[in-house]
Amino acid sequence: MVAPMVTLPWSKGSAPHTLAAALLMGRDNQEEGHEAIFCSGTGNAMTKVRVAGFSVSFDGFGAGPEQSLENPLGKRGQELHPWFIRTRSFQAMFGKSGGSGGVDDEYGHRSMDGFGAFILGRKMFGPIRGPWPDESWKGWWGNNPPYHAPTFVLTHYPRDPIEMEGGTTFFFVTNGIEAALEQAKLAANGRDVKIGGGVETVRQYLRAGLIDELHFAFSPVVLGQGEAMFSGIDLPALGYRVTEHQATEHATHIVLSR
Amino acid sequence: MVAPMVTLPWSKGSAPHTLAAALLMGRDNQEEGHEAIFCSGTGNAMTKVRVAGFSVSFDGFGAGPEQSLENPLGKRGQELHPWFIRTRSFQAMFGKSGGSGGVDDEYGHRSMDGFGAFILGRKMFGPIRGPWPDESWKGWWGNNPPYHAPTFVLTHYPRDPIEMEGGTTFFFVTNGIEAALEQAKLAANGRDVKIGGGVETVRQYLRAGLIDELHFAFSPVVLGQGEAMFSGIDLPALGYRVTEHQATEHATHIVLSR
Repeated sequence: MVAPMVTLPWSKGSAPHTLAAALLMGRDNQEEGHEAIFCSGTGNAMTKVRVAGFSVSFDGFGAGPEQSLENPLGKRGQELHPWFIRTRSFQAMFGKSGGSGGVDDEYGHRSMDGFGAFILGRKMFGPIRGPWPDESWKGWWGNNPPYHAPTFVLTHYPRDPIEMEGGTTFFFVTNGIEAALEQAKLAANGRDVKIGGGVETVRQYLRAGLIDELHFAFSPVVLGQGEAMFSGIDLPALGYRVTEHQATEHATHIVLSR
Repeated sequence: MVAPMVTLPWSKGSAPHTLAAALLMGRDNQEEGHEAIFCSGTGNAMTKVRVAGFSVSFDGFGAGPEQSLENPLGKRGQELHPWFIRTRSFQAMFGKSGGSGGVDDEYGHRSMDGFGAFILGRKMFGPIRGPWPDESWKGWWGNNPPYHAPTFVLTHYPRDPIEMEGGTTFFFVTNGIEAALEQAKLAANGRDVKIGGGVETVRQYLRAGLIDELHFAFSPVVLGQGEAMFSGIDLPALGYRVTEHQATEHATHIVLSR
């Protein structure tokens, strides 16, 4: 009973960027642009820092190896995501109707809902390493990224913010993960902050004890290589335990809280 | 929806050996003793080498840390096994009626059925390390171990075979995993050979390319420490892919074949 591969609407001839956009997105509503940030210093008491909709293989990889422009999720990384692609929530992000409901859809919806700011690692933002060669790379997602909120990109190389269509503004943070989280919390204005990935970014925030809740979707594949999510991370020692789990034909959803 | 802990019939006052016996067993029927071995050189054409009913946490641990007489499965290792303990198959091994049917029970039954020989690592056999101090340790399982077939124990220290009640004979193999498998295949006389664990033994056989099929039951817990099952093992490169998966409230069952 292996989950059937879904035929992707963009699988014929469209740019690989589109797949990345589809899989790495944040939330699906655009009813509000990002608000002015850094002005709501007392508004984040209820803010949770969450990882959500984070797909992993059963051997513990959150992305395949050798990320590139052609393989934004690493080689075979796309095999982690069919559980989500087939849901109504996912299809709706692209203005499509259809898709499945049920448990996968509920977790998919939760993975996009309620966030006021996002934090992304450098690899999550793009394949470029080192100094920015120019201003041309603006993320995997085209002109209207799926975040629709202030989105903080961790990097060692300064760059001016980029205001995109649909409410997403990318801010480049060069002074570390704690500083990025502080800014994101302020920007979130009482909503949650999503640590959007990739694997190494989640691991850094985990080790720093800065994440309140994590939802992993285990897809029924083994990758063998790639970005190992749990290696060397002692989740119980960090205070986490499994507080929720539900399985479908396409994924086993595990929520860790503390 | 965390799986409820089952009240174990032996949880009050009985020896920890009993829990180990319960959890580390092989198959439940005793209709035949072990046959004379090394006499069926052509009878193993159909023999498969299988790992079955092998419980792991979602962060990839097949046992907890610090195995001891008190913690034969390592600390918190027993949290990996509720999916099995609650099944009819498991209860029947102790002459009890009751227990649940369904998917977990089917996998539990398969994990004990059809094996003509077993291979166990030294830690699977007991907590003693180094040379055998005397002949007194005869496994975790009391006088009538649950294997009921020739059972080959990997060790660096020679020891005479031990014939137990119920058809189990422990043979101590000092010349490596390949030699142990050869002997086990002959002894199995056309039935399958089970690599009964522990984690390190399974990893050694995996890396040597000697396992045909593996069934892992992922229990909805994270351990953080212990014996990591998949770390540094590239399952696809070894030829494995997920050929079967089914999830219940208590475990996600993944079968890997090649």
